[in-house]
Amino acid sequence: MTRQIQLYYKNVTAEAIGPAHGLGTDELPKLNGEIVRITEKMRQDRQDGKLPYRDLPYQDQTCRKINDLTSQLAGKYDNMVVLGIGGSALGNIALQTALNSPIYNLLTERGGPRLFVIDNVDPVQFGSLLEYLDGQLDRTLFNVISKSGRTAETAAAFLTVQEMLKARLPGGQLTDYIIATTDANSGTMREIVNREGFTSLEVPDGVGGRFSVLSDVGLFSAAMCGIDIEQLLAGARDMDQRVKTDRLTKNPAALFAAIQYCYYHKGKRLSVMMPYSYQLKDLCDWFRQIWAESLGKAHDLQGNLVNVGPTPIKALGATDQHSQVQLYREGPNDKVFTFLEVKLFDRDVTIGDAGEVTELAYLSKKKMGNLMNNEKRGTEYALVASQRPCLTIRLAQINAYTVGQFIYLMEVATSYMGELFGINTYDQPAVELGKEATFALMGHEDYRQLLGKIQPTVAIDEDYLV
Amino acid sequence: MTRQIQLYYKNVTAEAIGPAHGLGTDELPKLNGEIVRITEKMRQDRQDGKLPYRDLPYQDQTCRKINDLTSQLAGKYDNMVVLGIGGSALGNIALQTALNSPIYNLLTERGGPRLFVIDNVDPVQFGSLLEYLDGQLDRTLFNVISKSGRTAETAAAFLTVQEMLKARLPGGQLTDYIIATTDANSGTMREIVNREGFTSLEVPDGVGGRFSVLSDVGLFSAAMCGIDIEQLLAGARDMDQRVKTDRLTKNPAALFAAIQYCYYHKGKRLSVMMPYSYQLKDLCDWFRQIWAESLGKAHDLQGNLVNVGPTPIKALGATDQHSQVQLYREGPNDKVFTFLEVKLFDRDVTIGDAGEVTELAYLSKKKMGNLMNNEKRGTEYALVASQRPCLTIRLAQINAYTVGQFIYLMEVATSYMGELFGINTYDQPAVELGKEATFALMGHEDYRQLLGKIQPTVAIDEDYLV
Repeated sequence: MTRQIQLYYKNVTAEAIGPAHGLGTDELPKLNGEIVRITEKMRQDRQDGKLPYRDLPYQDQTCRKINDLTSQLAGKYDNMVVLGIGGSALGNIALQTALNSPIYNLLTERGGPRLFVIDNVDPVQFGSLLEYLDGQLDRTLFNVISKSGRTAETAAAFLTVQEMLKARLPGGQLTDYIIATTDANSGTMREIVNREGFTSLEVPDGVGGRFSVLSDVGLFSAAMCGIDIEQLLAGARDMDQRVKTDRLTKNPAALFAAIQYCYYHKGKRLSVMMPYSYQLKDLCDWFRQIWAESLGKAHDLQGNLVNVGPTPIKALGATDQHSQVQLYREGPNDKVFTFLEVKLFDRDVTIGDAGEVTELAYLSKKKMGNLMNNEKRGTEYALVASQRPCLTIRLAQINAYTVGQFIYLMEVATSYMGELFGINTYDQPAVELGKEATFALMGHEDYRQLLGKIQPTVAIDEDYLV
Repeated sequence: MTRQIQLYYKNVTAEAIGPAHGLGTDELPKLNGEIVRITEKMRQDRQDGKLPYRDLPYQDQTCRKINDLTSQLAGKYDNMVVLGIGGSALGNIALQTALNSPIYNLLTERGGPRLFVIDNVDPVQFGSLLEYLDGQLDRTLFNVISKSGRTAETAAAFLTVQEMLKARLPGGQLTDYIIATTDANSGTMREIVNREGFTSLEVPDGVGGRFSVLSDVGLFSAAMCGIDIEQLLAGARDMDQRVKTDRLTKNPAALFAAIQYCYYHKGKRLSVMMPYSYQLKDLCDWFRQIWAESLGKAHDLQGNLVNVGPTPIKALGATDQHSQVQLYREGPNDKVFTFLEVKLFDRDVTIGDAGEVTELAYLSKKKMGNLMNNEKRGTEYALVASQRPCLTIRLAQINAYTVGQFIYLMEVATSYMGELFGINTYDQPAVELGKEATFALMGHEDYRQLLGKIQPTVAIDEDYLV
């Protein structure tokens, strides 16, 4: 059994799903030249230091530093709370769900502290957690993650935690309970770190939040919870070797991107990722950010208005067969599907004997993992019968090595896709306006002039209230 | 403050977002006649017993029966496990997330047993839970929910639990640990219930799974966990009175459907629901089923091939501002947004003092609930600035009464939408083929002839494996 994850693409071909919706034998080869050009450009960009995320898996000192820190902290905490949002949370959540028990926080024997990731400013969610932690703050570590420290949601959570710790632990050192992951040199959070003397980790330079999971950002909480971060990086390095070739059909990142790109231009602008594994569901949520925020762009690099961007959709097999598959088969043929399939589950369950219930005899004593995989095959068959294009990413097993591969594969596929679209993959200009409006509405002095513009949109006009 | 939830639609009008993407003053009125016709048809259908889901909120005896059962069982269990999938799980999960603590299962003081909903056949997820429960099976209640008992996922879970209970509790009565919610009279699960003597509840006749949350299906686990199911139904009845009028602009269900319908035909086929409340996130997942499975249909009632269906997308504010809003603002203008907004949160948190950090002074001592709501307003402003249509459903508070309203509102809106499309809202014909293929792959005798057809799709062709 190979340790490498694999992309299977037969069921996007015209041969499999027919000429109306399948890719003809000439369609992918048309992109060969583009893939050669892009692969060379990315190689050059990387060499010029313009794609630092590509080198994260080779940062051995990161692993050592984090493992050393984790060893120092071992046994000191029952709870760890990550305060972050977007790229400072989605990777942390995804690694935890993929590589620890689904009921990790309920277990008495765990690989580390309970993990909570607060990636919102919901007062009920946050207030409930703070109440839960109130009696055990001396056994709780907070890891605030913010490149600048200015992100409103993370800053609000941080200020609240800091004040609570000061009030509850009057004799205690805050430095025992807060570790900040932030810019190495500058910014609001770095200033706080310097003043308060917090232990700190780094958000690497030139790596956007959505490409940062394999840095201190994602690795620290993972290591604290017992995840083998060296294997994560080893898996990513394995994938790196595979995505260097400029031969389209040998490079899974280029191929995934090329197929998605073809379908985008054939009117299938929705990209559904549907793992047949509970453990992989939050990796789809992580993918949802990297795909949407990198590729949803108004302008191309020449400044032309293009308004491109596939919409990523997360689904979950087999659950969503009973929720979304009716639409997926009979609704508009506007989606391309990517299944994630696990060959061997970490543990399996033998289904009970059906006894006298002959109707269920077909399940008796079968393995649940086998049922899960046959659900995937059954759904794929049904979608193919409706001429819907299906990709599969196959994992021999779920472990840090294969998850590292998956993350790196999707990161590089995103880069290919951005180059194919001719856009800037690494910025997010449209996020600013909403942030500024929130600053204004919260009374931030610097944004006061925005308030007048915002009012017509947010003031309630009773004529339209039903 | 009104106890009723409200729909706000100013920001879908041409006045608000411009004529290219907004609804002109004549567009909704064009549907007045259709809404009058459909409202009368639904009134008649209901009177003829063809829309039994509409009457669920009036089943006082359901409430009494469930509350009596819950009283009998009070204090006996530390854990409750729902075994169900699709409509037999999504409502249960949604009610729990909306109306109990986000960390309910971790609390020592709770309104009832811990709640686990197993709506999949993932062997790692299921196996981990069974291991966790192994030492406390005498304090665990299983509620298996399946209309027929033939659903492969639920049947597999049920058989496994049954066998485990028999092995582990040799002297115990299985009847103390299993309650089945199933068809009142017939089907595989009803036969099992009759033979084993399980206590049973009913999946009501003529009510599809996705419309069944306000029946025994959704109410029992809710009541067990301390949720006020009478208030749920009272809220639904309140909404029922409001959605009987045939005046479009007075009927929030008709209006929600009409706006979504207009936009579908204007090329905005994606419907994003984005609550600014952690508690409401799983109601969006419930909505995702009712919208997709009801409205995603290949044929209209005349048998014409139409392949219609909006794609529902769940998002979460403020979290997804840092994941999806870049795409939502700059990508294709192919989405209509529905925000859920909560005026008064059940609890609030005061943000800590920013002290010397002047950059964050605007947050000092503000309420986190206020920040959450301003995040929503800021995002709405930014989307409107990009000419993206935005609806808001406003809840004064989150409680059983308002959640009951929301559920009923979305159910009736789904019915209106189906009538506007001219399709059968209540069937799901496309789900069958995948189920049958799974049966075949699992070795079910009755489906053996399908295997030959399935093989070409599911057999791996190494030429397409990268």
